[in-house]
Amino acid sequence: MPRVSQDHLDARRRQILDGARACFARYGYEGATVRRLEEATGLSRGAIFHHFRDKESLFLALAEDDALRMADVVAKQGLVQVMRDLLLVQEPSTEEHPADWLGTRLEVSRRLRTDPEFRARWAERSSQLTRATRERLLRQREAGNLRDDVDVTVLTSFLELVLEGLVSHLAMGLPADDLGPVLDVVEETVRRQRRTP
Amino acid sequence: MPRVSQDHLDARRRQILDGARACFARYGYEGATVRRLEEATGLSRGAIFHHFRDKESLFLALAEDDALRMADVVAKQGLVQVMRDLLLVQEPSTEEHPADWLGTRLEVSRRLRTDPEFRARWAERSSQLTRATRERLLRQREAGNLRDDVDVTVLTSFLELVLEGLVSHLAMGLPADDLGPVLDVVEETVRRQRRTP
Repeated sequence: MPRVSQDHLDARRRQILDGARACFARYGYEGATVRRLEEATGLSRGAIFHHFRDKESLFLALAEDDALRMADVVAKQGLVQVMRDLLLVQEPSTEEHPADWLGTRLEVSRRLRTDPEFRARWAERSSQLTRATRERLLRQREAGNLRDDVDVTVLTSFLELVLEGLVSHLAMGLPADDLGPVLDVVEETVRRQRRTP
Repeated sequence: MPRVSQDHLDARRRQILDGARACFARYGYEGATVRRLEEATGLSRGAIFHHFRDKESLFLALAEDDALRMADVVAKQGLVQVMRDLLLVQEPSTEEHPADWLGTRLEVSRRLRTDPEFRARWAERSSQLTRATRERLLRQREAGNLRDDVDVTVLTSFLELVLEGLVSHLAMGLPADDLGPVLDVVEETVRRQRRTP
């Protein structure tokens, strides 16, 4: 029954990642002890570290998993939609949190700043989002929706810089309820033509 | 001779701030011990804490001083110029570092993320840059240089978000040598009219 086994392994892996995501988001990397990871996943340390070599590997797998899910939204709806999803997280009334990757993203940003070893390990894995953003922009250009006076590489960096600013803004606990119109400006900047007033 | 005394006090205060800026930038807030602050300023702890109540007050005064100097550049040349200055810091060949406030700004960002008490104390002082940015944009609008289909508040937030993204980008040690054209896009976004290719 290799198929069933693989399904079972995948489900277990997903269970660990989902629990660990909540745990890292709540306690930060250092605060997410093995005991708290056990509680959050509902699994023993033996089960957890059967799937992931150590806490660092678990965190990297989670960060990679979240980056792939972000890249998926980018491919379908663009990086500005990812940023709009981040704003939703701030609204307490929202039951669904499409951007549950914010916690992971904040931890990645923090560790990139403080941990050169992590920076080296993450560098290889961080390209998915850039690639997804760039590919979507190229498709948009082909469809005639993108401005054509600026290189796609520059527009990709522009969107990534704004995303990083937004993540930092949220991490500092600054108010974000007025940022919707700012993201409209960002979106319009990469579009073909400026709307006339 | 009250005038001479005041000049002397001001010079001493400047000496402390300049030494402390380098010290905080190099070691971070926690790492900037009193002993290191003594070495960096060339003054005894007695002299330092004659001017500033404690390390926290010294750091807040420094952050406020740097924010005022940034606001000064913003008033004269705009926030995009502040960002261009930040890119210069990255170039090892540059002898002059117009953005020596980057170290302080990084520490402010980090502590805002991790220290709610600091967040409260900083909130009162952080409005200079926003005000300077907003006032410059209003002047630019009057001069007919600014786009007039978007509120100045939104454009101010847009520029601040990009600045925060840039600070975070540099803090993570990511390459910044290709960001000049990105800042061109940012600058052009707030201007009156899009350049045609």
